[in-house]
Amino acid sequence: MDNGTSSYSPINFAEKLKLISDQWQPRVVAEMNDYQFKLVRIEGDFLWHDHPETDETFIVIAGTLRLDFRDGFVEVGPGEMFVVPKGVQHKPSAATEVQMMLIEPRGTVNTGREGGERTAQNDLWI
Amino acid sequence: MDNGTSSYSPINFAEKLKLISDQWQPRVVAEMNDYQFKLVRIEGDFLWHDHPETDETFIVIAGTLRLDFRDGFVEVGPGEMFVVPKGVQHKPSAATEVQMMLIEPRGTVNTGREGGERTAQNDLWI
Repeated sequence: MDNGTSSYSPINFAEKLKLISDQWQPRVVAEMNDYQFKLVRIEGDFLWHDHPETDETFIVIAGTLRLDFRDGFVEVGPGEMFVVPKGVQHKPSAATEVQMMLIEPRGTVNTGREGGERTAQNDLWI
Repeated sequence: MDNGTSSYSPINFAEKLKLISDQWQPRVVAEMNDYQFKLVRIEGDFLWHDHPETDETFIVIAGTLRLDFRDGFVEVGPGEMFVVPKGVQHKPSAATEVQMMLIEPRGTVNTGREGGERTAQNDLWI
């Protein structure tokens, strides 16, 4: 069936990112089962933390994300992804702004079990 | 710690896609908990099917994916995504080649409960 106009809308990353004014504040754009897709803009250093209950996926849209680990690091550019295994301490950073997607179970907090003042409000949609 | 060279490697979508010679044959590139990230090249029409047990995520890298539903359709371009809810019949198609990522639980078969000759071998990694 082709009714000539699209009856459903895709989620456009660039359009959603334009709606995000603050860095380090992930915004949910979609859910798959009990997982959430979050877009976020970051710049500078985050804190060391881990997520003891879940792996965490980073897909970079713009910029170069650096993830430091206790035994090394990885740089993730546009069109690239990396999955941080659960329980592995990591420190995200971005020398210049990075726009990226996080994928993780609903309820996952940005600072993991570390907590503290950099903990963002969770489950905010755009 | 900066040892000057990256000690871990990101997953680069373009490089992985170059390794996929056949259309309609999803290849796993990463796992997050019990979910898999699969890259696939498609062109032409697929069959109507659904996945009764899980939502299914499509992220388009190149080309324009069309997903027909019984009550409409959506077109998904580069930098866009769409999540098909579990149990919803859909028919993917691509007028010209589409390169995309699928995200779904490990064990999810491309033809869902429809099965048949277009069922691809599952859990093949690149």
